[in-house]
Amino acid sequence: MAGRRRRRLLLVSNSTLHGGGYLEHVRPPLRRFLGPDVKRILFVPYALRDRDAYAKMARETFESLGYALDSIHESPDPGEAVRKAEAIFIGGGNTFRLLKVLYDNGLIPLIRKRVLEDGIPYVGSSAGTNVATISIHTTNDMPIVYPPSLLALGLVPFNINPHYLDPDVNSTHMGREFSNGT
Amino acid sequence: MAGRRRRRLLLVSNSTLHGGGYLEHVRPPLRRFLGPDVKRILFVPYALRDRDAYAKMARETFESLGYALDSIHESPDPGEAVRKAEAIFIGGGNTFRLLKVLYDNGLIPLIRKRVLEDGIPYVGSSAGTNVATISIHTTNDMPIVYPPSLLALGLVPFNINPHYLDPDVNSTHMGREFSNGT
Repeated sequence: MAGRRRRRLLLVSNSTLHGGGYLEHVRPPLRRFLGPDVKRILFVPYALRDRDAYAKMARETFESLGYALDSIHESPDPGEAVRKAEAIFIGGGNTFRLLKVLYDNGLIPLIRKRVLEDGIPYVGSSAGTNVATISIHTTNDMPIVYPPSLLALGLVPFNINPHYLDPDVNSTHMGREFSNGT
Repeated sequence: MAGRRRRRLLLVSNSTLHGGGYLEHVRPPLRRFLGPDVKRILFVPYALRDRDAYAKMARETFESLGYALDSIHESPDPGEAVRKAEAIFIGGGNTFRLLKVLYDNGLIPLIRKRVLEDGIPYVGSSAGTNVATISIHTTNDMPIVYPPSLLALGLVPFNINPHYLDPDVNSTHMGREFSNGT
Protein backbone atom coordinates (compact mmCIF):
# COMPACT_ATOMS: atom_id res chain seq x y z
CA MET A 1 0.00 0.00 0.00
CA ALA A 2 1.76 3.08 -1.25
CA GLY A 3 -0.74 5.56 0.20
CA ARG A 4 -2.53 8.21 -1.79
CA ARG A 5 -0.76 10.10 -4.54
CA ARG A 6 -1.95 13.27 -6.19
CA ARG A 7 -4.84 12.40 -8.51
CA ARG A 8 -4.24 13.11 -12.18
CA LEU A 9 -7.60 13.27 -13.96
CA LEU A 10 -8.79 14.83 -17.22
CA LEU A 11 -12.57 14.48 -17.42
CA VAL A 12 -14.05 15.52 -20.76
CA SER A 13 -17.78 15.82 -21.47
CA ASN A 14 -17.77 14.81 -25.13
CA SER A 15 -15.41 13.06 -27.52
CA THR A 16 -16.43 15.33 -30.37
CA LEU A 17 -17.65 18.86 -30.77
CA HIS A 18 -20.04 19.76 -33.57
CA GLY A 19 -18.13 19.63 -36.85
CA GLY A 20 -14.89 18.44 -35.28
CA GLY A 21 -12.99 15.16 -35.35
CA TYR A 22 -12.58 12.63 -32.57
CA LEU A 23 -11.03 14.36 -29.52
CA GLU A 24 -9.97 17.22 -31.81
CA HIS A 25 -11.11 19.88 -29.31
CA VAL A 26 -8.91 18.48 -26.55
CA ARG A 27 -5.66 17.77 -28.38
CA PRO A 28 -3.58 20.49 -26.67
CA PRO A 29 -4.93 19.80 -23.16
CA LEU A 30 -4.49 16.06 -23.68
CA ARG A 31 -0.83 16.53 -24.57
CA ARG A 32 -0.22 18.87 -21.65
CA PHE A 33 -2.01 16.53 -19.28
CA LEU A 34 -0.22 13.35 -20.32
CA GLY A 35 3.14 15.07 -20.45
CA PRO A 36 6.42 13.78 -21.86
CA ASP A 37 6.80 10.68 -19.68
CA VAL A 38 3.76 8.75 -20.89
CA LYS A 39 4.46 6.70 -24.03
CA ARG A 40 1.51 4.28 -24.13
CA ILE A 41 -2.19 4.70 -23.33
CA LEU A 42 -4.44 1.89 -22.18
CA PHE A 43 -7.78 2.43 -23.91
CA VAL A 44 -11.04 1.06 -22.50
CA PRO A 45 -13.68 0.70 -25.28
CA TYR A 46 -16.32 -1.11 -23.20
CA ALA A 47 -18.97 1.62 -23.55
CA LEU A 48 -19.57 0.82 -27.23
CA ARG A 49 -20.59 -2.45 -28.80
CA ASP A 50 -18.04 -2.47 -31.64
CA ARG A 51 -14.83 -2.45 -29.64
CA ASP A 52 -12.57 -3.11 -32.64
CA ALA A 53 -13.81 -0.10 -34.59
CA TYR A 54 -13.70 2.05 -31.46
CA ALA A 55 -10.12 1.05 -30.68
CA LYS A 56 -9.08 1.71 -34.28
CA MET A 57 -10.43 5.26 -34.11
CA ALA A 58 -8.85 5.94 -30.72
CA ARG A 59 -5.52 4.47 -31.85
CA GLU A 60 -5.36 6.71 -34.90
CA THR A 61 -6.05 9.75 -32.76
CA PHE A 62 -3.50 8.97 -30.06
CA GLU A 63 -0.85 7.91 -32.55
CA SER A 64 -1.29 11.26 -34.29
CA LEU A 65 -0.57 12.85 -30.90
CA GLY A 66 2.58 10.78 -30.49
CA TYR A 67 1.31 8.06 -28.14
CA ALA A 68 0.99 4.31 -28.63
CA LEU A 69 -2.38 2.86 -27.69
CA ASP A 70 -3.29 -0.59 -26.37
CA SER A 71 -6.97 -1.47 -26.21
CA ILE A 72 -7.86 -3.47 -23.13
CA HIS A 73 -10.25 -5.68 -25.11
CA GLU A 74 -7.30 -7.04 -27.09
CA SER A 75 -5.53 -8.13 -23.93
CA PRO A 76 -5.89 -11.74 -22.70
CA ASP A 77 -5.81 -10.43 -19.11
CA PRO A 78 -7.58 -7.08 -18.65
CA GLY A 79 -6.55 -6.87 -15.00
CA GLU A 80 -2.89 -7.29 -15.91
CA ALA A 81 -3.28 -4.63 -18.59
CA VAL A 82 -4.50 -2.20 -15.93
CA ARG A 83 -1.70 -3.17 -13.53
CA LYS A 84 0.89 -2.38 -16.22
CA ALA A 85 -0.76 0.74 -17.68
CA GLU A 86 1.11 4.05 -17.83
CA ALA A 87 -2.15 5.96 -18.39
CA ILE A 88 -5.80 5.03 -18.85
CA PHE A 89 -8.36 6.49 -21.25
CA ILE A 90 -11.98 5.39 -20.92
CA GLY A 91 -14.09 6.46 -23.90
CA GLY A 92 -17.77 7.34 -24.15
CA GLY A 93 -20.84 5.38 -25.15
CA ASN A 94 -23.44 3.84 -22.89
CA THR A 95 -22.60 4.35 -19.23
CA PHE A 96 -24.54 1.30 -18.01
CA ARG A 97 -22.78 -0.98 -20.47
CA LEU A 98 -19.39 0.44 -19.54
CA LEU A 99 -19.89 0.11 -15.80
CA LYS A 100 -21.21 -3.44 -16.12
CA VAL A 101 -18.14 -4.63 -18.03
CA LEU A 102 -15.81 -2.88 -15.56
CA TYR A 103 -17.52 -4.87 -12.79
CA ASP A 104 -17.70 -8.10 -14.79
CA ASN A 105 -13.95 -7.95 -15.41
CA GLY A 106 -13.13 -7.03 -11.82
CA LEU A 107 -11.49 -3.78 -12.85
CA ILE A 108 -13.06 -1.30 -10.41
CA PRO A 109 -10.57 -1.82 -7.53
CA LEU A 110 -7.63 -2.19 -9.94
CA ILE A 111 -8.27 1.11 -11.73
CA ARG A 112 -8.91 2.84 -8.40
CA LYS A 113 -5.56 1.63 -7.09
CA ARG A 114 -3.62 2.70 -10.18
CA VAL A 115 -5.13 6.21 -10.19
CA LEU A 116 -5.45 6.91 -6.46
CA GLU A 117 -2.37 5.10 -5.14
CA ASP A 118 0.02 4.94 -8.08
CA GLY A 119 -0.98 8.32 -9.51
CA ILE A 120 -1.20 7.34 -13.18
CA PRO A 121 -3.12 9.74 -15.45
CA TYR A 122 -6.79 8.97 -16.10
CA VAL A 123 -8.64 10.46 -19.05
CA GLY A 124 -12.39 10.02 -19.28
CA SER A 125 -14.79 11.17 -21.94
CA SER A 126 -18.58 11.19 -21.55
CA ALA A 127 -19.40 7.73 -20.11
CA GLY A 128 -15.72 7.49 -19.13
CA THR A 129 -16.24 10.67 -17.12
CA ASN A 130 -19.45 9.37 -15.55
CA VAL A 131 -17.73 6.24 -14.23
CA ALA A 132 -14.89 8.31 -12.74
CA THR A 133 -17.35 9.81 -10.25
CA ILE A 134 -19.02 8.40 -7.13
CA SER A 135 -21.88 6.79 -9.03
CA ILE A 136 -23.79 6.85 -12.29
CA HIS A 137 -27.04 7.98 -10.66
CA THR A 138 -26.89 11.17 -12.76
CA THR A 139 -26.35 9.68 -16.20
CA ASN A 140 -28.73 10.52 -19.06
CA ASP A 141 -28.07 7.20 -20.76
CA MET A 142 -30.65 4.49 -21.09
CA PRO A 143 -30.25 1.48 -18.79
CA ILE A 144 -29.71 -0.98 -21.64
CA VAL A 145 -28.00 -3.44 -19.29
CA TYR A 146 -28.11 -3.98 -15.52
CA PRO A 147 -24.77 -3.47 -13.74
CA PRO A 148 -24.34 -5.07 -10.30
CA SER A 149 -24.24 -1.60 -8.72
CA LEU A 150 -24.56 2.05 -9.72
CA LEU A 151 -21.50 2.92 -7.65
CA ALA A 152 -18.57 3.77 -9.89
CA LEU A 153 -14.81 4.34 -9.60
CA GLY A 154 -15.08 7.18 -7.09
CA LEU A 155 -11.98 8.96 -8.39
CA VAL A 156 -13.64 12.28 -7.53
CA PRO A 157 -15.91 12.91 -4.52
CA PHE A 158 -18.91 14.12 -6.54
CA ASN A 159 -21.10 13.15 -9.49
CA ILE A 160 -21.14 14.72 -12.94
CA ASN A 161 -23.73 15.04 -15.67
CA PRO A 162 -21.53 15.54 -18.74
CA HIS A 163 -24.44 16.20 -21.09
CA TYR A 164 -26.55 18.63 -19.14
CA LEU A 165 -28.76 20.83 -21.29
CA ASP A 166 -30.63 23.81 -19.95
CA PRO A 167 -34.38 23.29 -20.32
CA ASP A 168 -35.86 24.58 -23.56
CA VAL A 169 -38.23 27.22 -22.18
CA ASN A 170 -40.05 27.40 -25.53
CA SER A 171 -40.84 23.71 -25.65
CA THR A 172 -44.48 22.64 -25.33
CA HIS A 173 -43.46 18.99 -25.06
CA MET A 174 -44.42 17.86 -21.59
CA GLY A 175 -42.22 14.76 -21.59
CA ARG A 176 -39.06 14.68 -19.59
CA GLU A 177 -35.62 14.98 -21.07
CA PHE A 178 -33.30 15.21 -18.10
CA SER A 179 -35.64 14.87 -15.19
CA ASN A 180 -35.01 13.06 -11.97
CA GLY A 181 -38.77 12.85 -11.65
CA THR A 182 -38.94 14.47 -8.23
CA MET B 1 -55.46 -20.14 -10.46
CA ALA B 2 -58.21 -18.66 -12.57
CA GLY B 3 -56.25 -18.71 -15.82
CA ARG B 4 -55.69 -15.70 -18.03
CA ARG B 5 -58.43 -13.16 -18.54
CA ARG B 6 -58.53 -10.52 -21.22
CA ARG B 7 -56.05 -7.78 -20.29
CA ARG B 8 -57.57 -4.37 -19.68
CA LEU B 9 -54.84 -1.74 -19.98
CA LEU B 10 -54.85 2.00 -20.66
CA LEU B 11 -51.23 3.15 -21.06
CA VAL B 12 -50.84 6.93 -21.28
CA SER B 13 -47.58 8.69 -22.11
CA ASN B 14 -48.07 11.83 -20.02
CA SER B 15 -50.28 12.95 -17.16
CA THR B 16 -50.55 16.46 -18.60
CA LEU B 17 -50.49 18.06 -22.01
CA HIS B 18 -49.10 21.55 -22.46
CA GLY B 19 -51.54 24.00 -20.94
CA GLY B 20 -53.91 21.35 -19.63
CA GLY B 21 -54.75 20.06 -16.18
CA TYR B 22 -53.85 16.73 -14.60
CA LEU B 23 -55.16 13.91 -16.84
CA GLU B 24 -57.42 16.44 -18.55
CA HIS B 25 -56.59 15.12 -22.02
CA VAL B 26 -57.69 11.59 -21.14
CA ARG B 27 -60.92 12.21 -19.24
CA PRO B 28 -63.28 10.72 -21.87
CA PRO B 29 -61.09 7.67 -22.61
CA LEU B 30 -60.57 7.09 -18.87
CA ARG B 31 -64.30 7.02 -18.28
CA ARG B 32 -64.92 4.72 -21.24
CA PHE B 33 -62.08 2.45 -20.17
CA LEU B 34 -63.10 2.11 -16.52
CA GLY B 35 -66.75 1.72 -17.39
CA PRO B 36 -69.77 1.82 -15.06
CA ASP B 37 -68.81 -1.11 -12.80
CA VAL B 38 -65.68 0.38 -11.26
CA LYS B 39 -66.40 2.58 -8.24
CA ARG B 40 -62.98 2.89 -6.57
CA ILE B 41 -59.46 3.29 -8.00
CA LEU B 42 -56.32 2.14 -6.20
CA PHE B 43 -53.70 4.84 -6.87
CA VAL B 44 -49.97 4.09 -6.71
CA PRO B 45 -47.99 7.32 -6.07
CA TYR B 46 -44.56 5.67 -5.58
CA ALA B 47 -42.91 7.42 -8.55
CA LEU B 48 -42.89 10.79 -6.78
CA ARG B 49 -41.34 11.74 -3.47
CA ASP B 50 -44.32 13.63 -2.04
CA ARG B 51 -46.92 10.89 -2.02
CA ASP B 52 -49.47 12.88 0.00
CA ALA B 53 -49.55 15.78 -2.45
CA TYR B 54 -49.61 13.38 -5.38
CA ALA B 55 -52.54 11.41 -3.96
CA LYS B 56 -54.42 14.62 -3.24
CA MET B 57 -54.12 15.72 -6.86
CA ALA B 58 -55.09 12.31 -8.22
CA ARG B 59 -58.03 12.04 -5.81
CA GLU B 60 -59.44 15.41 -6.90
CA THR B 61 -59.21 14.36 -10.53
CA PHE B 62 -60.81 10.96 -10.12
CA GLU B 63 -63.53 12.25 -7.80
CA SER B 64 -64.42 14.83 -10.45
CA LEU B 65 -64.83 11.89 -12.83
CA GLY B 66 -67.13 10.11 -10.41
CA TYR B 67 -64.68 7.59 -8.86
CA ALA B 68 -63.43 7.21 -5.32
CA LEU B 69 -59.66 6.92 -4.96
CA ASP B 70 -57.57 5.10 -2.37
CA SER B 71 -53.84 5.76 -2.36
CA ILE B 72 -51.81 2.65 -1.65
CA HIS B 73 -49.37 4.60 0.50
CA GLU B 74 -52.17 5.28 3.00
CA SER B 75 -52.87 1.58 3.41
CA PRO B 76 -51.25 -0.35 6.29
CA ASP B 77 -50.95 -3.38 3.95
CA PRO B 78 -50.14 -2.47 0.35
CA GLY B 79 -50.41 -6.09 -0.77
CA GLU B 80 -53.89 -6.37 0.67
CA ALA B 81 -54.83 -3.11 -1.05
CA VAL B 82 -53.82 -4.65 -4.39
CA ARG B 83 -55.67 -7.88 -3.64
CA LYS B 84 -58.87 -5.92 -3.01
CA ALA B 85 -58.50 -3.33 -5.79
CA GLU B 86 -61.22 -2.89 -8.42
CA ALA B 87 -58.84 -0.99 -10.69
CA ILE B 88 -55.24 0.23 -10.45
CA PHE B 89 -53.75 3.54 -11.58
CA ILE B 90 -49.97 3.97 -11.40
CA GLY B 91 -48.90 7.57 -11.93
CA GLY B 92 -45.76 9.08 -13.42
CA GLY B 93 -42.53 10.36 -11.92
CA ASN B 94 -39.19 8.59 -11.74
CA THR B 95 -39.37 5.10 -13.18
CA PHE B 96 -36.45 3.74 -11.13
CA ARG B 97 -37.98 4.97 -7.87
CA LEU B 98 -41.36 3.51 -8.79
CA LEU B 99 -40.01 0.11 -9.77
CA LYS B 100 -37.84 -0.12 -6.64
CA VAL B 101 -40.80 0.50 -4.31
CA LEU B 102 -42.95 -2.00 -6.21
CA TYR B 103 -40.21 -4.60 -5.59
CA ASP B 104 -39.55 -3.48 -2.01
CA ASN B 105 -43.24 -3.93 -1.17
CA GLY B 106 -43.51 -7.25 -2.99
CA LEU B 107 -46.19 -5.94 -5.33
CA ILE B 108 -44.91 -7.15 -8.72
CA PRO B 109 -46.50 -10.63 -8.60
CA LEU B 110 -49.65 -9.32 -6.91
CA ILE B 111 -50.34 -6.66 -9.54
CA ARG B 112 -49.54 -9.14 -12.30
CA LYS B 113 -52.07 -11.58 -10.89
CA ARG B 114 -54.82 -8.99 -10.54
CA VAL B 115 -54.40 -7.69 -14.09
CA LEU B 116 -53.52 -10.88 -15.97
CA GLU B 117 -55.62 -13.42 -14.06
CA ASP B 118 -58.43 -11.40 -12.51
CA GLY B 119 -58.74 -8.95 -15.41
CA ILE B 120 -59.03 -5.73 -13.38
CA PRO B 121 -58.38 -2.49 -15.32
CA TYR B 122 -54.84 -1.06 -15.16
CA VAL B 123 -54.14 2.57 -16.01
CA GLY B 124 -50.53 3.72 -16.31
CA SER B 125 -49.16 7.14 -17.05
CA SER B 126 -45.54 7.84 -17.96
CA ALA B 127 -43.51 5.87 -15.38
CA GLY B 128 -46.68 3.87 -14.69
CA THR B 129 -46.67 2.95 -18.38
CA ASN B 130 -42.97 2.07 -18.32
CA VAL B 131 -43.42 -0.42 -15.49
CA ALA B 132 -46.36 -2.08 -17.27
CA THR B 133 -43.97 -3.33 -19.96
CA ILE B 134 -41.36 -6.10 -19.96
CA SER B 135 -38.61 -3.95 -18.48
CA ILE B 136 -37.51 -0.37 -17.90
CA HIS B 137 -34.44 -0.68 -20.14
CA THR B 138 -35.91 2.02 -22.41
CA THR B 139 -36.72 4.68 -19.83
CA ASN B 140 -35.30 8.19 -20.21
CA ASP B 141 -35.35 8.76 -16.47
CA MET B 142 -32.23 9.10 -14.38
CA PRO B 143 -31.31 6.11 -12.24
CA ILE B 144 -31.71 8.00 -8.96
CA VAL B 145 -32.14 4.71 -7.07
CA TYR B 146 -31.10 1.10 -7.76
CA PRO B 147 -34.00 -1.35 -8.10
CA PRO B 148 -33.25 -5.05 -7.60
CA SER B 149 -33.99 -5.68 -11.29
CA LEU B 150 -34.91 -3.74 -14.42
CA LEU B 151 -37.61 -6.30 -15.25
CA ALA B 152 -41.05 -4.82 -14.73
CA LEU B 153 -44.67 -6.00 -14.56
CA GLY B 154 -44.70 -7.54 -18.03
CA LEU B 155 -48.36 -6.76 -18.62
CA VAL B 156 -47.58 -6.26 -22.32
CA PRO B 157 -44.99 -8.26 -24.32
CA PHE B 158 -42.92 -5.26 -25.43
CA ASN B 159 -41.22 -2.14 -24.06
CA ILE B 160 -42.34 1.45 -24.46
CA ASN B 161 -40.58 4.80 -24.43
CA PRO B 162 -43.41 7.14 -23.49
CA HIS B 163 -41.35 10.31 -23.96
CA TYR B 164 -39.65 9.68 -27.27
CA LEU B 165 -38.62 12.83 -29.10
CA ASP B 166 -37.44 12.84 -32.67
CA PRO B 167 -33.85 14.06 -32.85
CA ASP B 168 -33.49 17.79 -33.38
CA VAL B 169 -31.71 17.78 -36.72
CA ASN B 170 -30.76 21.43 -36.26
CA SER B 171 -29.04 20.90 -32.94
CA THR B 172 -25.29 21.37 -32.77
CA HIS B 173 -25.16 19.94 -29.26
CA MET B 174 -23.23 16.69 -29.50
CA GLY B 175 -24.43 15.32 -26.18
CA ARG B 176 -26.96 12.57 -26.08
CA GLU B 177 -30.59 13.02 -25.20
CA PHE B 178 -32.17 9.68 -25.88
CA SER B 179 -29.25 7.57 -26.92
CA ASN B 180 -28.69 3.95 -26.14
CA GLY B 181 -25.02 4.68 -26.79
CA THR B 182 -24.57 1.96 -29.41
